Amino acid sequence: MTTLTLRHVAIDTYRENVAYLHRDCKLYRSQGFQALNKIEIQQQDNGRSIIAVLNVVDDIAITAPDELGVSEQAFAQLGGVAGIAVSVAHARAPDSISAVHRKIAGDRLNLEDYRGIARDIAANRYSKIEIAAFLVACSEIGLEREEVLHLTRAMIETGERLDWGEPLVVDKHCIGGIPGNRTTMIIVPIVAAHGMLMPKTSSRAITSPAGTADTMEVLAEVELSPDKLHEIVRSERACLAWGGTARLAPVDDLLIVVERPLLMDSPGQLVASILSKKLAAGANHLVIDIPIGATAKIRSRNSALVLRKLFEYVADSLGINLEVVFSDGRQPVGRGIGPALEARDVMQVLNNDPAAPIDLREKALQLAGRILEFDPDIRGGQGYMIARDILESKRALAKMQAIIKAQGKNPSPPQIGRLRHAVRACESGFVIGINNLQLARIARLAGAPMDQGAGVDLHRKLGEPVQAGETIYTIYAAFPADFEFARESAEQDSGYQIGDHYVDDMP
Amino acid sequence: MTTLTLRHVAIDTYRENVAYLHRDCKLYRSQGFQALNKIEIQQQDNGRSIIAVLNVVDDIAITAPDELGVSEQAFAQLGGVAGIAVSVAHARAPDSISAVHRKIAGDRLNLEDYRGIARDIAANRYSKIEIAAFLVACSEIGLEREEVLHLTRAMIETGERLDWGEPLVVDKHCIGGIPGNRTTMIIVPIVAAHGMLMPKTSSRAITSPAGTADTMEVLAEVELSPDKLHEIVRSERACLAWGGTARLAPVDDLLIVVERPLLMDSPGQLVASILSKKLAAGANHLVIDIPIGATAKIRSRNSALVLRKLFEYVADSLGINLEVVFSDGRQPVGRGIGPALEARDVMQVLNNDPAAPIDLREKALQLAGRILEFDPDIRGGQGYMIARDILESKRALAKMQAIIKAQGKNPSPPQIGRLRHAVRACESGFVIGINNLQLARIARLAGAPMDQGAGVDLHRKLGEPVQAGETIYTIYAAFPADFEFARESAEQDSGYQIGDHYVDDMP
Repeated sequence: MTTLTLRHVAIDTYRENVAYLHRDCKLYRSQGFQALNKIEIQQQDNGRSIIAVLNVVDDIAITAPDELGVSEQAFAQLGGVAGIAVSVAHARAPDSISAVHRKIAGDRLNLEDYRGIARDIAANRYSKIEIAAFLVACSEIGLEREEVLHLTRAMIETGERLDWGEPLVVDKHCIGGIPGNRTTMIIVPIVAAHGMLMPKTSSRAITSPAGTADTMEVLAEVELSPDKLHEIVRSERACLAWGGTARLAPVDDLLIVVERPLLMDSPGQLVASILSKKLAAGANHLVIDIPIGATAKIRSRNSALVLRKLFEYVADSLGINLEVVFSDGRQPVGRGIGPALEARDVMQVLNNDPAAPIDLREKALQLAGRILEFDPDIRGGQGYMIARDILESKRALAKMQAIIKAQGKNPSPPQIGRLRHAVRACESGFVIGINNLQLARIARLAGAPMDQGAGVDLHRKLGEPVQAGETIYTIYAAFPADFEFARESAEQDSGYQIGDHYVDDMP
Repeated sequence: MTTLTLRHVAIDTYRENVAYLHRDCKLYRSQGFQALNKIEIQQQDNGRSIIAVLNVVDDIAITAPDELGVSEQAFAQLGGVAGIAVSVAHARAPDSISAVHRKIAGDRLNLEDYRGIARDIAANRYSKIEIAAFLVACSEIGLEREEVLHLTRAMIETGERLDWGEPLVVDKHCIGGIPGNRTTMIIVPIVAAHGMLMPKTSSRAITSPAGTADTMEVLAEVELSPDKLHEIVRSERACLAWGGTARLAPVDDLLIVVERPLLMDSPGQLVASILSKKLAAGANHLVIDIPIGATAKIRSRNSALVLRKLFEYVADSLGINLEVVFSDGRQPVGRGIGPALEARDVMQVLNNDPAAPIDLREKALQLAGRILEFDPDIRGGQGYMIARDILESKRALAKMQAIIKAQGKNPSPPQIGRLRHAVRACESGFVIGINNLQLARIARLAGAPMDQGAGVDLHRKLGEPVQAGETIYTIYAAFPADFEFARESAEQDSGYQIGDHYVDDMP
């Protein structure tokens, strides 16, 4: 078999491996390859192989006819050594694709089917197109609840699984969609100060203005090696780290790459995604926060109930203790939206600062209370008071400082963006609506989360009175272009509704 | 707004535009771009814009920080001039994606919805992921027949439409899947010799060992400019050209790029794809060939009937005269599989060569007869005899020679592959089964259609007696690697079934 010489092409193609073959390469002609074909690249010395999408090159400065160029990620997966011999062949369609076709045709799949799909996706055998087909098929016909259970199981099995060796390992998760909702950074120090084990790994923002990992990064290092992470958890009973370094439920990461641009978030996928990650991370007691609101992911109490029952069914079947909490999703939580602004809110709450946003503090205490009640020694209903006591005695603050120190304090915390624009009320009245989606959009346009200091700071919340001309929120940015985009968007739609009457209709 | 300098990156990314941005480019940081994001590139001077997928570059030899590199196709779409100023922004999701989400949720879409989807796809605003979501949604819930009609209409409207200015413009189409089925190259000269207008444009093979355009290319030039094509049709009443140069129903071409790797071919998509192409090409009388067989696309008479009714409904609504013919899809048609071998079969039939494959000749005469009967002057049932008369009198051959001359005769027709391998029967008996899919696979592995002389030549057909050790077919190839792949595949599965009893059970 003809071999080619491996070459590193310094192009970052994120989660899609790309191979570059020169048009004059004899394999290109003889094998009938076409650009966008999926090919299998095999290392000659150890037989290891990866799947990549083919691009055809007409410039020997990129790839010569006797070479196979590969993008940065593919190069790393092949061991990162240029000049080794590789062979190339058409990639076969993954075996499990027949199950996807059965799902498209309306069949119900079994555990073995989902295992096959998860294994092939984890091995990068699915193209983005094939992943999209799987997701749409699951979303459209819908998954029966047994199928959600099968999918969750299969996703856990295809990755690493942490074992903390303790009967009570707690975690919390919010299904997302509410800007500023940074309760995790308050809950973790409270719960750990009580002595419970809460090894929290979080994601970075994908479509939101800040994830917990982005916000914690304002204060401390979050990219920790597995050894370092274990050491911190052993000494502090907790951590607040980025979850991307561990290979936990890797299928989920690959599905997300396709789900996000499609704006797909079916209940079955949501439950499988969250529970597979949490179980793989070793949690056995879990509180799920489902915010309900007109511009939240879940818009009615009815949909929230359906989702709760699905969470409960899968969690019970997998032997994890799970409590679902419904919360107020009608507006952002806290004041800041964007990493530095949200970190400020969190630290104000932990410091018992009178300026701290009350809604963020209250929500964090409620959720922390529910987690504390997983402790058999705590009487039902006492969790909230114990959480408040830990917060007010500044034991939570001390724990947060210890975690920051252990992870490595950020030596140069970011400044809040130097470009500032006040968005003012056009009329007087009460704030009767705040659009989560529009506020998140403005904060992102302003530069969050890439610019840690960028974002939006809210001066008025739902139900508060406002006079025409008063500032309802401030936009912060670092770069003029971003600043303009954010201002323009706020001018078109401030995201605020002002009216004469406000009725508190918490869903 | 910040601008970048356009640069040509000599990478062929086929139907997916790719843009290359250096990691140190200030826009990369300030805009929060990520690899695989969809971006909109706008030419500063004329405002023209395209959508592309972003790759991030770490090598200034590919793209410098003040440049925007684009792949070959994107460069051509932007006018093909390096050094011009372009601006870059996040691409918004196409407006029509909300209709796709409604389809995923099970809604029925209306004509305006399909128009929006077709317009956005034609403008390259859909990523492959979004196209996959649309296709799966259409395939799974299925399209109601009104929706197939809407989709067909929308696909026609988004491209050019040819008008030949005559009331009787005929065409034929086979839904595909049967190797060697090259009837078109016999039908066109027969019908044109009778004086009917048949401006035939065909596709190249995508997953099969030869398309009509590939086979005709063995004999003559097939990539004709629109002017040249019209001139030939005016003088000869017909042509046998590649359809890729005209922008007819371009949405179909973009859907196919995603359909093929997914192996999706739902009836609704199939009908919309075929009829939109034919109507855009100006046909108003059409014969559709649906082969039925265990290894054909359509496996039962019942599925064939469902498909026929869908064809009839859409064609009637669009005012095109359409006849559906069911044919024998149990085995390849003719002997040769691969461009040069199939061209040989065709010319044998046109030459009335006694060695000509009878099944190819008979099938072509049947279909040509049906087309001739669109002529109001031909009595029902007489078409076949008239077609046979045109063939036997060599008027069809003369017409074919005139078409070849007009399009430009191939000055160096390909040789049949120099590497040859005889596949022999392991036992004696009758040929009781031939697998279309396996024979097509072997011919493709041997190098067809890229190597025009490669392919498979059948020595035995269904129902024929065979002795153990006799050659059942020959594999032809030009390159040793291809030759080995094809031989290996034939050894694993020859695609032939031999048994003691043969019953002719034509479906």
